[in-house]
Amino acid sequence: MRRTMACFTFAFSLALAAAGAPARAQTSPVDPDAQRKDDLVAAYKILVNEGILDSFGHVTFRSAKDPNIFVMPRAMPPSLVTRDDLLELRVSDSQPIDPKGRKVNGERYIHGEIYKARPDVMAVIHTHSQAVIPLSLTRFKMKPVVAQAGFLPPETPTFEIRDARGADGRGMQVTDSSRGAALARTLATYPVALMRGHGDVVVGGSIKQAVVYAAYVDINARMQTQGMLLSPDIATMDQAELFTPEEFDINRPWEHLKQKTLDEASRAKIDRSQFGLEQTQEKK
Amino acid sequence: MRRTMACFTFAFSLALAAAGAPARAQTSPVDPDAQRKDDLVAAYKILVNEGILDSFGHVTFRSAKDPNIFVMPRAMPPSLVTRDDLLELRVSDSQPIDPKGRKVNGERYIHGEIYKARPDVMAVIHTHSQAVIPLSLTRFKMKPVVAQAGFLPPETPTFEIRDARGADGRGMQVTDSSRGAALARTLATYPVALMRGHGDVVVGGSIKQAVVYAAYVDINARMQTQGMLLSPDIATMDQAELFTPEEFDINRPWEHLKQKTLDEASRAKIDRSQFGLEQTQEKK
Amino acid sequence: MRRTMACFTFAFSLALAAAGAPARAQTSPVDPDAQRKDDLVAAYKILVNEGILDSFGHVTFRSAKDPNIFVMPRAMPPSLVTRDDLLELRVSDSQPIDPKGRKVNGERYIHGEIYKARPDVMAVIHTHSQAVIPLSLTRFKMKPVVAQAGFLPPETPTFEIRDARGADGRGMQVTDSSRGAALARTLATYPVALMRGHGDVVVGGSIKQAVVYAAYVDINARMQTQGMLLSPDIATMDQAELFTPEEFDINRPWEHLKQKTLDEASRAKIDRSQFGLEQTQEKK
Amino acid sequence: MRRTMACFTFAFSLALAAAGAPARAQTSPVDPDAQRKDDLVAAYKILVNEGILDSFGHVTFRSAKDPNIFVMPRAMPPSLVTRDDLLELRVSDSQPIDPKGRKVNGERYIHGEIYKARPDVMAVIHTHSQAVIPLSLTRFKMKPVVAQAGFLPPETPTFEIRDARGADGRGMQVTDSSRGAALARTLATYPVALMRGHGDVVVGGSIKQAVVYAAYVDINARMQTQGMLLSPDIATMDQAELFTPEEFDINRPWEHLKQKTLDEASRAKIDRSQFGLEQTQEKK
Repeated sequence: MRRTMACFTFAFSLALAAAGAPARAQTSPVDPDAQRKDDLVAAYKILVNEGILDSFGHVTFRSAKDPNIFVMPRAMPPSLVTRDDLLELRVSDSQPIDPKGRKVNGERYIHGEIYKARPDVMAVIHTHSQAVIPLSLTRFKMKPVVAQAGFLPPETPTFEIRDARGADGRGMQVTDSSRGAALARTLATYPVALMRGHGDVVVGGSIKQAVVYAAYVDINARMQTQGMLLSPDIATMDQAELFTPEEFDINRPWEHLKQKTLDEASRAKIDRSQFGLEQTQEKK
Repeated sequence: MRRTMACFTFAFSLALAAAGAPARAQTSPVDPDAQRKDDLVAAYKILVNEGILDSFGHVTFRSAKDPNIFVMPRAMPPSLVTRDDLLELRVSDSQPIDPKGRKVNGERYIHGEIYKARPDVMAVIHTHSQAVIPLSLTRFKMKPVVAQAGFLPPETPTFEIRDARGADGRGMQVTDSSRGAALARTLATYPVALMRGHGDVVVGGSIKQAVVYAAYVDINARMQTQGMLLSPDIATMDQAELFTPEEFDINRPWEHLKQKTLDEASRAKIDRSQFGLEQTQEKK
Repeated sequence: MRRTMACFTFAFSLALAAAGAPARAQTSPVDPDAQRKDDLVAAYKILVNEGILDSFGHVTFRSAKDPNIFVMPRAMPPSLVTRDDLLELRVSDSQPIDPKGRKVNGERYIHGEIYKARPDVMAVIHTHSQAVIPLSLTRFKMKPVVAQAGFLPPETPTFEIRDARGADGRGMQVTDSSRGAALARTLATYPVALMRGHGDVVVGGSIKQAVVYAAYVDINARMQTQGMLLSPDIATMDQAELFTPEEFDINRPWEHLKQKTLDEASRAKIDRSQFGLEQTQEKK
Repeated sequence: MRRTMACFTFAFSLALAAAGAPARAQTSPVDPDAQRKDDLVAAYKILVNEGILDSFGHVTFRSAKDPNIFVMPRAMPPSLVTRDDLLELRVSDSQPIDPKGRKVNGERYIHGEIYKARPDVMAVIHTHSQAVIPLSLTRFKMKPVVAQAGFLPPETPTFEIRDARGADGRGMQVTDSSRGAALARTLATYPVALMRGHGDVVVGGSIKQAVVYAAYVDINARMQTQGMLLSPDIATMDQAELFTPEEFDINRPWEHLKQKTLDEASRAKIDRSQFGLEQTQEKK
């Protein structure tokens, strides 16, 4: 039985290694955030690969150690993020607990204020996605149109920073707690808010969920935009077509998106047992 | 010596498989579905490579052993499908004959009900193709506009799940026999039906035909959409331009699409004799 | 001096090898079409790489041996064409001189009839380019809008096969001499004709010229289409902006397009002396 | 031992160069343009990789040795430019100081005349970018719409060569000092001017700045174009959202764009200390 366990552990490590994340043995056995850190690094790879993050944008998670802490990479290009780049920040004021001499991200207030306002949120993604920006420049709201985007509300709000920055405020970035709190108010209880001329924020109950949501926000925005160019009266999803998180199995798109970031050799090592294979009688 | 032969045969089969050629030796000599299984795996690679399948979507075939059986991969990302993932399901109720402990696909009713209604159909593809969704959101029907899409009817129907799911029904997925049968009725005798906000179903007399049709459905939908943005009165194909399956040689696009999924080394091994080379006097 | 010659020859061979073409030594020293065959194979690689040829489409050249002969690959996917696949056909009737047991291309009449009508034409390209099809479906003509497309006439004609195929004719393909001749009449003295719902034909005084023209036809069609979506009254090029072949150095785009088909290692071997480097005093 | 050192130094420089870091040791220690030459070669790689430069287009810098000299590659495809291809030209007349037997670029007057008119400009990029051409064909001006494009003026001018070339002038290229001067007048004090049917010019206080600006000009033009297709009254950035060069940290997008041109192995060698890592207590 020990051998079976060992094999399982080995396969699991391989799956993680295949996804570009360090194997468990490399991390402290007592780090409750180990899995979240692996998922965060995978999330960066996925979102860069899908063209959702480019030079800017960031993904964070709420620490499993303490709900008043969130974890965010230092200021750097998303495509280069590793576990070594992660810093812990306080939800209360979005300041780093120990900056380790590193430059913190100027827009960390987006994350801190959302974690403060939304206890249900475990992960926050901020993107400059070119799929949502055209819609964000218009008076039209994003509406759910594609089957997998049923997690969206009937109308996704668009954040207008002019309403938040005051008469003397300058710039479009969310660079203080006040702006972050205003964005969190626009987001309200929703999973997504567009940001005019800037991109969006997408939140989830896990990193995986936020990543899958971000992917479908992009697809939905593109399909809605192209549909509206053909006809202003496109069909949007009705109440019976929207769904709860429990009704959407995010594991399949998460695995699909993750394996797209792998080269052929790593893809072959993916732990295939995760795709609904249970209690098989087959011998391999 | 038997062992050496076996090894050689195995290596040889691998090389052929890598080159996209059928690997008969790998399969039981009495499996009548061997070629169809090879084509199914190739179909998944092609449709993922063309961006027609993404995290979701599936391809199935009707078994050569028994017309009341169809073959479908378990629930998993399309990009990872191998022969090991295939299950046999009954046409009568879309249930697996032996699930082998694996999770079956929730939308298998699409396939079962189409096989039931259409004895001519040997392969079914369901996609979430972003080429067809914008059109599916509008009141416009897909019409044939590109020379290779002459297999389409003058108007391709769009399936509206609201008409099928009843007053209490929820969701856009085809998750029971009743919805599958409604989709099959919309498909009628056609090779394609769009599905509003969801994608399409494409059927064929073979896996190859369905794959080539799916590729040209995407091209046709894109060309029609872009043409309509320029001008509402675009030219569509007339009756003299539509064709029967016999008039369209699917082998060339099938080989083209298949070799696009190969790396340079495997591409060099393609059996070139298939491209119309017969009785050549040349020495190589 | 012999050494200099040898070096030159070596560098030249490298450049050819880098472009994926066989080095001169492999071909008969007396084949006047050797360079054209190399260019034809490079043309296929370029046009597939640019997405201008897909499953269908073909490139041919007029033989340097005899203006009544043109050279065309057998019926096969464009992405796989090598020198071994080339056949000689008669301009007079588009029939192969020696089919070598191979299947000839059904649309060879496009090429034969254009070579017959246009003694100035040395290369013909037929594409199913998705850049030109939307425009071809509308009443709008392609007009020159981008600086490098000054080889275009003020209005490029669009071929309507319905005008050519007669009351009983079927299909959109150019499968006989009569249809080929009608297409050649539409092309008239121009370098390009669009084909409604089908693609285009592009001709040139050399394979290089036809390939570069085909690339800019695509760019021009896309820019015109996108411009027209913004505004119906886009600026088109005036007479003083159109140019003669002598005014457009095709070597730079030809080399650019060719090196894009190469891998990193082959790219490093490109004969860089061709890019305007003459009589340099530098030592390398 | 000297030889060993030399070899080591050379190999080390190569490794650094591969990782996108400046390779000072390779260049003469007294060449004040060494860093600019490295950045110029990187700029070509980046702009080709982003699809901003294709067969044509060029990047130049003002020499650190003498403000009356600018450095430009000979006439050649942008994708192949190396340090060996660079020539020095005079700002006064755009002529090469020593052509070294090489063909100079026909549109060098764009650069010379802008350096003459704009002492603040240290780098000039001319592109045939397909992101800006559709807009350039219309009466609409490019306006800043995306958060990172706040370096743009409220309206970016579009250069109309017809206004500059005189009654007998031909062609759309900027092939003499008079046309170059007219373009420089249109550019005025701005960082960008579109060129009708041709592309754009982008200038900066450094090569890095001009490259990052060029990248965001493309993104901005695409977002504005797509937004305008949805609705003519899109939101553009107001005065409080435009920024000065000091307010935009170009290092992050520059590093992001540069690492996208690297293969996996070279990417791993990037000097990660540059991303805001200062005085860390960590050991690596």
